[in-house]
Amino acid sequence: MDCEPIGHVETPFATTDAAPRQGFRGDQSGTVRVDEQYRRGLTGFEVGDTVLVMWWADRADRSVLRVRGGDRGVFTTRSPARPNPVCLTACEVLAVDEAAGTLDVDGVYMADGSPVLDLKRTLDAAEGAPPGE
Amino acid sequence: MDCEPIGHVETPFATTDAAPRQGFRGDQSGTVRVDEQYRRGLTGFEVGDTVLVMWWADRADRSVLRVRGGDRGVFTTRSPARPNPVCLTACEVLAVDEAAGTLDVDGVYMADGSPVLDLKRTLDAAEGAPPGE
Repeated sequence: MDCEPIGHVETPFATTDAAPRQGFRGDQSGTVRVDEQYRRGLTGFEVGDTVLVMWWADRADRSVLRVRGGDRGVFTTRSPARPNPVCLTACEVLAVDEAAGTLDVDGVYMADGSPVLDLKRTLDAAEGAPPGE
Repeated sequence: MDCEPIGHVETPFATTDAAPRQGFRGDQSGTVRVDEQYRRGLTGFEVGDTVLVMWWADRADRSVLRVRGGDRGVFTTRSPARPNPVCLTACEVLAVDEAAGTLDVDGVYMADGSPVLDLKRTLDAAEGAPPGE
């Protein structure tokens, strides 16, 4: 199936290895740049919202099925190296500019330049929600 | 970018409209069927685990950018109708059979037959974790 990036993300990390590990929320901020034809989809974001950034780990090894010395299947982990390297990062919205297509966010740990496939609202504790929503 | 399904999911719902809305955990169970070449990635799942099922809403309208009468951008929602209809459902593992490539899960609300792109461990409350992990 054909995924088209809606934009890309700018972060301080050259590679995913240089980024903090998932699950340990970093304090680094970055910018999601949304391509012009998708910017109308940004309406309604507010500062302080939590947004789930779905991005493509374009430098990941897609042949990996086992990790941790072969003991665990990759589907029981969050490793970016996996058959479809679609990754999820919950970030906090710092600023939004719909006309410019920019969403400044805190808590990034993707590699700089990674393609972004989607942005989503977070839901409940089981699915990725801000506490208390 | 090229996403290849790792399998598909069997559920009681003919369409996403027939499924309960996201955020309201359903009590319906279903089966993720993983294609043979990816089954080694299932090692380590246990009954009771929460798994994040990433699936493709293959019948979704990909032209949607605004929802709710045009008031909200689609990226601030969880609507399956969006430019890249990659959806997330946190399910509970009921049974796993790595040789057969089946993961029986509770809490499904995807449409029957939807392609599955990935399975992931859930993390913390902000990213999609079982309470208490």
